[in-house]
Amino acid sequence: MTNVIIAVDCMGGDYGPSVVVAAVKKALQQFPQVAFKLYGDLSQIQAQLKQNQLSLSKRLHVFASSDDVKMCDAPALALKNKKSSSMRMALEAVRDGQANACVSAGNTGALMAVSRFVLKMLPGIDRPAIISAIPTLKNDHVYFLDMGANVECSAKRLAQFAIMGDQLARCLDKSDSPKVGLLNVGEEDNKGSDILKNASAMIAQLTNVNYAGFVEGNQIFSGDYQVIVTDGFTGNNVLKASEGLSHYLAEKIKMAFQKNWWTRFCGLLAKPVINAFKSEINPEKYNGACLIGLRGIVIKSHGSANIHATYCALEEAIVQSYQKLPQRIREQLDQAKSTFD
Amino acid sequence: MTNVIIAVDCMGGDYGPSVVVAAVKKALQQFPQVAFKLYGDLSQIQAQLKQNQLSLSKRLHVFASSDDVKMCDAPALALKNKKSSSMRMALEAVRDGQANACVSAGNTGALMAVSRFVLKMLPGIDRPAIISAIPTLKNDHVYFLDMGANVECSAKRLAQFAIMGDQLARCLDKSDSPKVGLLNVGEEDNKGSDILKNASAMIAQLTNVNYAGFVEGNQIFSGDYQVIVTDGFTGNNVLKASEGLSHYLAEKIKMAFQKNWWTRFCGLLAKPVINAFKSEINPEKYNGACLIGLRGIVIKSHGSANIHATYCALEEAIVQSYQKLPQRIREQLDQAKSTFD
Repeated sequence: MTNVIIAVDCMGGDYGPSVVVAAVKKALQQFPQVAFKLYGDLSQIQAQLKQNQLSLSKRLHVFASSDDVKMCDAPALALKNKKSSSMRMALEAVRDGQANACVSAGNTGALMAVSRFVLKMLPGIDRPAIISAIPTLKNDHVYFLDMGANVECSAKRLAQFAIMGDQLARCLDKSDSPKVGLLNVGEEDNKGSDILKNASAMIAQLTNVNYAGFVEGNQIFSGDYQVIVTDGFTGNNVLKASEGLSHYLAEKIKMAFQKNWWTRFCGLLAKPVINAFKSEINPEKYNGACLIGLRGIVIKSHGSANIHATYCALEEAIVQSYQKLPQRIREQLDQAKSTFD
Repeated sequence: MTNVIIAVDCMGGDYGPSVVVAAVKKALQQFPQVAFKLYGDLSQIQAQLKQNQLSLSKRLHVFASSDDVKMCDAPALALKNKKSSSMRMALEAVRDGQANACVSAGNTGALMAVSRFVLKMLPGIDRPAIISAIPTLKNDHVYFLDMGANVECSAKRLAQFAIMGDQLARCLDKSDSPKVGLLNVGEEDNKGSDILKNASAMIAQLTNVNYAGFVEGNQIFSGDYQVIVTDGFTGNNVLKASEGLSHYLAEKIKMAFQKNWWTRFCGLLAKPVINAFKSEINPEKYNGACLIGLRGIVIKSHGSANIHATYCALEEAIVQSYQKLPQRIREQLDQAKSTFD
């Protein structure tokens, strides 16, 4: 008997069904009580099912979509014109109780807009926030939000993020009392804008959140916190700058090893170590950003996600489904109502 | 004959006169037309002069301060209570025309507050911004501001930053028409807050600024821009997160090389290459943040700056003095007045 159903948009991302179906195969093996509904172009999906030696069953269903959301589609147009897209159909399955969660590697802006329209927000929340795990030194990872959905945030919004991040960490990491920090330009209470000071005071009042005060940017990767909250503008820029810096450092180290025959020889010897290092900090391990604050579960897989990374996104959808994350967040938001009003 | 005089606060930073005097010695050799006025504890400075075989001359003067600003001093208290500090005396020398620029490795908040009080701001500017060069892939560096002084910024403030960054790049790099970008969550004109959209429209109107529109965080380290403008909150968090990420990656790569005897052997061989890489991305090359927007030149050297890094900060003060940076910024702000009003 299956007790969780995942709706999968097969048409998003750089590789479409060729990666998604292979990832679903792995998840079918790993989670014997989970069923999958695949949405997308029928012939492409069937070709991949054949290639992966999969056949339809009680745990594997396919639904034909007649359209798909392109990476370049404007969110408003995707919402208005792509009503028979695989993305929309997968989200509607969640809305209609035909699935517990939706996974898509499609256009982020469109996924945000269509999710918000189809699934609706939890009471008191205006827009989904984007939250994802990022690697840290001391612990495995920190949950960081908002990564770009809400460029301007009120104090209340930031406090809602603290609740949502806290619940996600409890749910995915089985963490009892995750340490939550609010990003600022200093740790002292008098630092930052009035919005941040008010947000800090609000979060401190939330009895169920283990709030540790302001944190600075250099602490994001330290592992001293399990959840770090910021507005979407700062979050987006911090993450993209980190991507840019990683690329810069990787290129510079490559150049250092390519300088002459001796450095190239050293590079050859060091390659397995460098590769082990790369796999340790591999972003694929952290695939599966969550659109949080919705009435249903939506996991955004990275556009360039490979089979393993897509499997991680499916796994995250499954764990959130078992843990009923949106209901848990709703209860906490209800409890916090007096703090916010 | 000397034509530029640099006032040096010898008491700031982790190492005080022991590093500062040695850096001044190097600058005396490199810039035969520049004189230095050293401010600080007389006996400590004299001990260092002796150690460096330096004696007082027309190009080297020492002034005794009876107090110094500590790293932990609150800016307001430093301003009120430390009127005979080396920091304050060095800034007053600039105000009184006894020096062209001030260099200090002291407490940043105090340096900001005292500079603003002693030197005053250029017309139309409220607070100094902090600008510094950071390394990039394609070009040597990009000038990035504001790094944390102005946590909330109006559109006009951001446009002023564009003017100041542009002038700094022209002055230090002899760049004809530096490419200026404004940090945002996307490159499209409709992205970001109203403040950013207005700032973008204002900067586009500045005839003397080569404005290339919005840039995203991953482009900071790419080298496609010579100046990147953002508010102090985002700038501070982006830079501190970059520091945190660099530390995280350095630790992870160290751990990868320490795994077993073979990886340690590879690490031994790769060490000179890794060291060459480290020196290539060495932040010391980029020492010398500038407090910009003041009526005088103030260079903030890093608290942990060594002799070479301190020398870089002195060199920056000298170049800015020859180029008369504050006057140049003032002229550009005057020209832009109609855009701002």
